[in-house]
Amino acid sequence: MSAIDHLVHANARFAETFPGPRPLRPKLRLTVITCMDSRLDLFGALGLDIGDAHLIRNAGGIPTDDVLRSLALSQRALGTREVVIIHHTQCGMDGFDDDAFRAELEAESGEAPPWRVAGFTDLYEDTRRSVETVRNCAWIPHREDVRGFVFDVATATITEVT
Amino acid sequence: MSAIDHLVHANARFAETFPGPRPLRPKLRLTVITCMDSRLDLFGALGLDIGDAHLIRNAGGIPTDDVLRSLALSQRALGTREVVIIHHTQCGMDGFDDDAFRAELEAESGEAPPWRVAGFTDLYEDTRRSVETVRNCAWIPHREDVRGFVFDVATATITEVT
Repeated sequence: MSAIDHLVHANARFAETFPGPRPLRPKLRLTVITCMDSRLDLFGALGLDIGDAHLIRNAGGIPTDDVLRSLALSQRALGTREVVIIHHTQCGMDGFDDDAFRAELEAESGEAPPWRVAGFTDLYEDTRRSVETVRNCAWIPHREDVRGFVFDVATATITEVT
Repeated sequence: MSAIDHLVHANARFAETFPGPRPLRPKLRLTVITCMDSRLDLFGALGLDIGDAHLIRNAGGIPTDDVLRSLALSQRALGTREVVIIHHTQCGMDGFDDDAFRAELEAESGEAPPWRVAGFTDLYEDTRRSVETVRNCAWIPHREDVRGFVFDVATATITEVT
């Protein structure tokens, strides 16, 4: 059985006891931006409930143009106000060789992608930079409460980056 | 207390009973691409455990360039193979007026953003299109198992789109 077939079976069990729909607008008026990493169980680790917050995730948890697009929609169309950015220890982007990766893609497909991978070398500095990117984005109306954290995948604790 | 302060308190409790680290590479060799919507609790709804799968999320769950960047990394650097794309009912992107939103941003900030919002009008057709986008992306090495689903926010069930 494929991994996806396992999900389909698990979903059928989950739906049996599902308590019913929640509103479209996030209850905590909060957006979380973080990495796609498989060890970040945001509902568990942050005590979130269904309907609480928008969750935006990509490789690294970095505020790319696509993340800012999503965040602009989150605030302007769906009423969120606070933003939390969470990077994490042992990230696949830490020390990643951007140029080598792009060269590999170009060699295989005959074309280099339009994006950069955005590896980093200092986790805390990278988190600070991500917070600044959101704070400086003119299309995001609410930038007073943008805070950055580092998640430790060994202990599941978050530490604020100031 | 702010929403973010609530998360910090909840995280301290979660960490007390955290069983310890998992490997960097996702155990199910799976990547899930879905919407940022607050009602999608992927760990619960799909029966995922910590360490199982990469989770990529943006407004709409659409495979933008940034999502394809993340997916390329997921497969090439971290060993994933299967891809599941999940769109959902009552999405904020359904029927969204892209042009009006961009005009609003330009009027407020003096500059139109480089991205489009990517609203849609047919949920199932949009899911099919997203699956095709991934299947046609030359930078993604494993495209045999790319499957699309629709999540119903009223019942928490997923239905495959073929």
